[in-house]
Amino acid sequence: MIVPKTLGGDVVPGVRAVRELLLADARPVRKLLIDRERTDDAELLDLARDHGVRVELVDGHRIDRQARIDTHQGVVAIAAPVGDVPLDALCTRADAFLVALDGVTDPRNLGAVLRTAEVAGATGAVLARHRGALLGPAAIKAAAGAIEHLPLALVSGVPSAIEHARRAGVWGVGLDAAGPTPIRELPVADASVMLVLGGEGRGLSRLARERCDVLASIPMHGRLESLNVAAAAAVACFEIAARRATR
Amino acid sequence: MIVPKTLGGDVVPGVRAVRELLLADARPVRKLLIDRERTDDAELLDLARDHGVRVELVDGHRIDRQARIDTHQGVVAIAAPVGDVPLDALCTRADAFLVALDGVTDPRNLGAVLRTAEVAGATGAVLARHRGALLGPAAIKAAAGAIEHLPLALVSGVPSAIEHARRAGVWGVGLDAAGPTPIRELPVADASVMLVLGGEGRGLSRLARERCDVLASIPMHGRLESLNVAAAAAVACFEIAARRATR
Repeated sequence: MIVPKTLGGDVVPGVRAVRELLLADARPVRKLLIDRERTDDAELLDLARDHGVRVELVDGHRIDRQARIDTHQGVVAIAAPVGDVPLDALCTRADAFLVALDGVTDPRNLGAVLRTAEVAGATGAVLARHRGALLGPAAIKAAAGAIEHLPLALVSGVPSAIEHARRAGVWGVGLDAAGPTPIRELPVADASVMLVLGGEGRGLSRLARERCDVLASIPMHGRLESLNVAAAAAVACFEIAARRATR
Repeated sequence: MIVPKTLGGDVVPGVRAVRELLLADARPVRKLLIDRERTDDAELLDLARDHGVRVELVDGHRIDRQARIDTHQGVVAIAAPVGDVPLDALCTRADAFLVALDGVTDPRNLGAVLRTAEVAGATGAVLARHRGALLGPAAIKAAAGAIEHLPLALVSGVPSAIEHARRAGVWGVGLDAAGPTPIRELPVADASVMLVLGGEGRGLSRLARERCDVLASIPMHGRLESLNVAAAAAVACFEIAARRATR
């Protein structure tokens, strides 16, 4: 198994992701490739010019090859990898609202969770080096630019990150289908929290579950037994966001 | 442009989707193809036997060809298309909680919204014949079986469906980034509602927006300007679910 040392994210496909990459200006952009048949997005061309980024108008198949996903919308940027921040820096913020991913393997789900977390006002996200997807093109596309704004910590394991956060005064809140606390009644929603999400199918690991202070669940009202992890993240993140907004 | 007359959904890829197809027993299943190298899911084989469904153990590339998506998990069933119900039947329920999709084009988003709606307790969903994705393999996989349980109406246009629902006493609630009512303060959340979701990027059509009684928004707390439609659907559906649970 290859253990990545960095978050990746150097390949940035899709209009939204590229626009945020350029606007945020948080990391160097080597070049922007645009399908020569799909150059109707004048905004992107202007943005690239304003930021001094080289634009190459190329054939569609070159975009396909660089983007490595087929939903690139004819646009891909090549940038420096996404930088990570120490977990400590995320935990010591007084208003910490962190989202930790414990084994999410589908890159689109990972990207969708990061996008949702950013929009909900999360102050950071925690990804594990050893489990789950890191920032490949599909994750970057789905994140729609969130990773340009949301500080990310790369840890060796989520259970020890929960422990670390707790010692810094951050509540560990695991989202678990069998969690005894309905998310709507989460007592610590307006305090410093680390929301911990498990992988598709398996859910939270036993260790992560044990390390959390609270196990919260989303009440189910249908016949299916589970939500998609990105949908569950959206419900939980915006519950926390709403509670923080009124504190 | 090809205007489909039925919902489709005859190709059912993925373990969850196939399991719900067999368990729900709501439509005839012609056969179940399982990759001969991936037959460790005894539950599916038992389910198929119990329901008298023919199982073929085949090569992986045959699954690839039938499933038409690469996330099939080695399993694809061929079934009768998903049947639709009249919009009227959905609107006349006293506890109607409907989700209408106005131009959602990404099949994974469509499937994810249907899964979320089912789990949130929606009593039906409304899809337009002319706009957006219908039930191809990617949508069916992402729906994870929701379409076996959630009644679906196929309409010629969402704006006229909103009008129809309103005349039946169902409130039209459009989800719109610029909507003046925060979703948390939605006054009609515990009444009969049709939640209307716009497509990726474009949002609600002008006509759909005009036909709604209320335009609700999800407060944004980050730097990005929008949520993915499936994430927005999750937040709105579970807001409505929570309010209905306490009425």
